[in-house]
Amino acid sequence: MTPVDGRRVRLVGIGAGHPDQLTVEAVKALNAADYAIVAQKSEDDPLVGLRRELLARHAPDLEVVPVRDPARNRSVEATGTRAGYEAAVTDWHEARAGAYEQVLLERPGEAVFLVWGDPAFYDSTVRIVERVLARGAVTFEWDVVPGISALQLLAARHRIVLHEVGQPIVVTTGRRLREAVDSGADNVLVMLNRALELDGLQDWHIWWGADLGTVSERLVSGPVGEVREAVERARAEVKAEAGWVMDVFLLRRR
Amino acid sequence: MTPVDGRRVRLVGIGAGHPDQLTVEAVKALNAADYAIVAQKSEDDPLVGLRRELLARHAPDLEVVPVRDPARNRSVEATGTRAGYEAAVTDWHEARAGAYEQVLLERPGEAVFLVWGDPAFYDSTVRIVERVLARGAVTFEWDVVPGISALQLLAARHRIVLHEVGQPIVVTTGRRLREAVDSGADNVLVMLNRALELDGLQDWHIWWGADLGTVSERLVSGPVGEVREAVERARAEVKAEAGWVMDVFLLRRR
Repeated sequence: MTPVDGRRVRLVGIGAGHPDQLTVEAVKALNAADYAIVAQKSEDDPLVGLRRELLARHAPDLEVVPVRDPARNRSVEATGTRAGYEAAVTDWHEARAGAYEQVLLERPGEAVFLVWGDPAFYDSTVRIVERVLARGAVTFEWDVVPGISALQLLAARHRIVLHEVGQPIVVTTGRRLREAVDSGADNVLVMLNRALELDGLQDWHIWWGADLGTVSERLVSGPVGEVREAVERARAEVKAEAGWVMDVFLLRRR
Repeated sequence: MTPVDGRRVRLVGIGAGHPDQLTVEAVKALNAADYAIVAQKSEDDPLVGLRRELLARHAPDLEVVPVRDPARNRSVEATGTRAGYEAAVTDWHEARAGAYEQVLLERPGEAVFLVWGDPAFYDSTVRIVERVLARGAVTFEWDVVPGISALQLLAARHRIVLHEVGQPIVVTTGRRLREAVDSGADNVLVMLNRALELDGLQDWHIWWGADLGTVSERLVSGPVGEVREAVERARAEVKAEAGWVMDVFLLRRR
């Protein structure tokens, strides 16, 4: 690939938590880059530390450029309408695009975005890069290197296949779980939970995990009616221990 | 983990095609193992060659034990009933379990199963290992190392997120695509296609890929009505060139 204007951007999935869960292709991409852009959600974002640990192990010479995430308008999102939610996310993406554009303008060469999990699932980096290009101030070639997603690590840790033989899986967010259940889905994989809402699902089986791949990792599985309290307790423990909690779970109707 | 009876089994996802798409964790697992079990679908299974290439690059000293897959009863599956299909798959899994049991009985130590893609999606290795244990003739500890799946590589190559902002994804098989469409799903990711059946989906957008990660990789995207012939042509070309075709696609209602 020939860089345009001397610039190239690679979105590199770095796995779900453990520094050895990135691919050989990703390691090569990191070592070939000039610098890494790391989104930073707050002054002491714990995920920045995990990314630095990963880079220390696999690409110690790579310069890290932290980019502070603009604040997201949670009050608009919380109105609960799809339009409100999408507008809030759109504003947020535009603000992030501006921040990344600035870094890319200042630095020619090859930049890698370190993307938690896989850029293909519930991640905004692809859309932000498209938005940076659409703004027209900076041009570059770009590509994507896939990474292990938390949903795959959930399956690995529970030693399960994510579906019954030949059956479908619905992948969705905590916000839309109820919709998937109501539509008759039997097998629902849930990412992005701000709270656990398992009311009325007592008879379903759950395979749950939090902060997978990290030292704070927790797993719980069983009928929702029996393990729900254990899940909630584990979720609170992880949050207290790690300072953050990212959980993912599979629900299967029985 | 302490091996039981000196035996341990690891299911290692090795990615979707390119030998650098396995994780650092997977490379370590291969190099720590005593031997690798590789399922062989036929005398000249082309996927065995790809696996050998991957091992030559990342674990050259690992002994490979090919296990010939028992034949699958396609005539029963072709009756089209879910019960018939499941029974045929069950018989096949039992025959495979017997074959693997034999290898494990003959060889103590640590075995890795090289699993194409990720053991979490439309792969039978987890179920076969459980079946080997259930037969009771051999005991072992076991775990799973996740790998990049073809659906992730599809997203990476097309540089897309697999869903619109905050929306769900249905992951299913070619056999059950119609069911997903009829149920109102707007965003369907299809794996395991024996034939492409896109009738009535002219207005949907498709992102299609075959033999991803290999030298024969092909990509097509666009409205189904416009690109359907290009997809079918590319599919035939890949099959002619590589001797096999594994395709995966995302369909989105517009």
